[in-house]
Amino acid sequence: MRIENIRSTERFGSVRINDVQKVLELDSGKTENSPVGAPTGIKIHDEVIRSLEGQMAIVIPVKDEKLQLFEGVISGVPHDCSLIVVSNSSRKKVDRFRLEKDTLEQFCRHAQRSAYIIHQKDAAIAEIAKQAGYTDLIGEDGLVRNGKSEGMVIGLLMAMVLGKKYIGFIDADNYFPGAVLEYVKSYAAGFSMSTSPYAMVRILWRYKPKFAGRLYFKKWGRVSETTNKYLNSLLSAATGFETDIIKTGNAGEHAMTIKLAEILPYASGYAVEPQEIVSILEQSGAVLPAPYPTVAKHGIDVFQIETKNPHLHEEKGVVHLLDMLRSGLSAIHQSQLANSTIKKMIITELVKQEALQPDETLPPPHINRPLRKVDLKSAQTLLRQRLEDYSVSPKP
Amino acid sequence: MRIENIRSTERFGSVRINDVQKVLELDSGKTENSPVGAPTGIKIHDEVIRSLEGQMAIVIPVKDEKLQLFEGVISGVPHDCSLIVVSNSSRKKVDRFRLEKDTLEQFCRHAQRSAYIIHQKDAAIAEIAKQAGYTDLIGEDGLVRNGKSEGMVIGLLMAMVLGKKYIGFIDADNYFPGAVLEYVKSYAAGFSMSTSPYAMVRILWRYKPKFAGRLYFKKWGRVSETTNKYLNSLLSAATGFETDIIKTGNAGEHAMTIKLAEILPYASGYAVEPQEIVSILEQSGAVLPAPYPTVAKHGIDVFQIETKNPHLHEEKGVVHLLDMLRSGLSAIHQSQLANSTIKKMIITELVKQEALQPDETLPPPHINRPLRKVDLKSAQTLLRQRLEDYSVSPKP
Repeated sequence: MRIENIRSTERFGSVRINDVQKVLELDSGKTENSPVGAPTGIKIHDEVIRSLEGQMAIVIPVKDEKLQLFEGVISGVPHDCSLIVVSNSSRKKVDRFRLEKDTLEQFCRHAQRSAYIIHQKDAAIAEIAKQAGYTDLIGEDGLVRNGKSEGMVIGLLMAMVLGKKYIGFIDADNYFPGAVLEYVKSYAAGFSMSTSPYAMVRILWRYKPKFAGRLYFKKWGRVSETTNKYLNSLLSAATGFETDIIKTGNAGEHAMTIKLAEILPYASGYAVEPQEIVSILEQSGAVLPAPYPTVAKHGIDVFQIETKNPHLHEEKGVVHLLDMLRSGLSAIHQSQLANSTIKKMIITELVKQEALQPDETLPPPHINRPLRKVDLKSAQTLLRQRLEDYSVSPKP
Repeated sequence: MRIENIRSTERFGSVRINDVQKVLELDSGKTENSPVGAPTGIKIHDEVIRSLEGQMAIVIPVKDEKLQLFEGVISGVPHDCSLIVVSNSSRKKVDRFRLEKDTLEQFCRHAQRSAYIIHQKDAAIAEIAKQAGYTDLIGEDGLVRNGKSEGMVIGLLMAMVLGKKYIGFIDADNYFPGAVLEYVKSYAAGFSMSTSPYAMVRILWRYKPKFAGRLYFKKWGRVSETTNKYLNSLLSAATGFETDIIKTGNAGEHAMTIKLAEILPYASGYAVEPQEIVSILEQSGAVLPAPYPTVAKHGIDVFQIETKNPHLHEEKGVVHLLDMLRSGLSAIHQSQLANSTIKKMIITELVKQEALQPDETLPPPHINRPLRKVDLKSAQTLLRQRLEDYSVSPKP
């Protein structure tokens, strides 16, 4: 793979947010190309990507997705990655979790690889969370709460038990296995450029095709634009210099070093991705005191990589978009970095976009604490004992 | 990459047509996986794929495609392949060829690679064809005729001059660079399985999404189904056993060894891909005498590989489909293998599908002779002298 060089970086305390880097070539070949003039791109060698993939878990949160899509997505995940599926699919009437497990098993048999699949409502995983004191994760029914971020936390715990160094998330509703492959290679490309054990890679889609009579290749969604605007305003307000560096506030496709992942909180619902950025900025030491000296010393690298493939996924409708907008902005609104002007602008925006009633107060998102804050050691020990229950291996 | 094992093969004289093999995994990793039980798939190692790519030219015929699509397609071609663009785009009003060349140049600069681009109406290439006695290629205006197959022949000649061993074709109207990458890897996978210097790989799309209110994933197009049916009938009529082995009669995405490419004729228009199969069957020695003893000795391997990625491309409308149907069936109709029953069925089919008037005779396709039949040596010498004119290299 070849991607653009880092063109500019915004520094905010110990955090380095790099401007978008485009993927230039999906496959940059084995030959050493002697650079002519100043190279605009960086070649990430296969061996480097492969070695990072071997240390990476790819977590795929699933909720009642079409099986054809699920099957395509898993087939795009490079073989050397550990594949972890966290499903919150319906088990009533048709046991969709069972169908997903069957699909995964068949894939593993064909591809001669192993994988893990766990249901979000698995009683054992709820028990483990409770024993570790991670009650944030538990709902009224005593099981893990619904939601993508709670699924992400389960995946993260699994990745830790598997001894992985990196974790990447990929949504299960993608139509193109080739796009999934590019996400993972981009994650690896990002990590290969990082100089810190605390790093994050966020994917920017080149286009998001829409069907309006003909195919229309949208570059920016309204929700993303708004979320990015207010995330950037947190930076601008603190530094006094306006910026538009953050372009991936809602990036569902993103990856982290496990070291970074364990110190971040996970907001429920669609707040999860913007909340990660908010938390990174809060921990930068630029405004608030930096909570972790080691993190402050190394700094946090954020990479934003624009893929070559368009992103074509299942359409979920307008309600979903308003919910996304509201949740994302609530994460920014509740931040200690948000001054009263930003808070007011967010409320006005939400009312204008009809995502909030004029007399309604914006509730903060439910936050699942960082894993570092719970009894991680006992959680890992308990999960390790049960790991086999969630394992899918090719059978003879 | 990992693909399905060959499940069955139809042998027709010295030709081996293998049943469809599905891609199982886009990236099968570096780790050696010890097979458990009988492996259903074949792992094609990166090194093998890379080595084949280094000997492969990828030819992209272009005709007034959107530049965004063109740019995406070229960025999906693996770096180690030689990239050859043959354009027949309009040069009036807006010089689209110039825009394509600019796009290609920018890409080559970013990706630090070289490529070739030639216009189908280039006077020098017409002159070379004439000098080699390849008048089939020349139209009334003294230049190379319009049409994809004539562009393919130019690409083939370039690939020969570059000393390549394999040639693959990829259409320029594809929305997904990741699909392009998969086509090339599939070509390499096919060649890696071949035991003959005469081999062909044809791509079967997993789905071809259509927009009918929502996205609908079509597996079979009406045209493809009909073309395949009559191609199979050529086989069935000769052997007395019905078969449906041919599933890629209209495959625009296909690749060949140069040795095979130079003994095949190239029919004009949409007849080109079905004609290749017809010619391969004719040369099999099963019914007609085999014209080339060396080919008969080694045999011809045909692989059909089903990709993981759906095929999403520009819609060209109904007229285009009828033209495709008519051209494809005309190639089968004029074959010496087509008996009177098949000929009659084809005419009935075309009239039924309103691609032919009841009183109309079906004209045979225009055929450009195999390159082996012209003065290939002088064509190559002449083209080699002009090669620099068509070269695009990263500039300092």
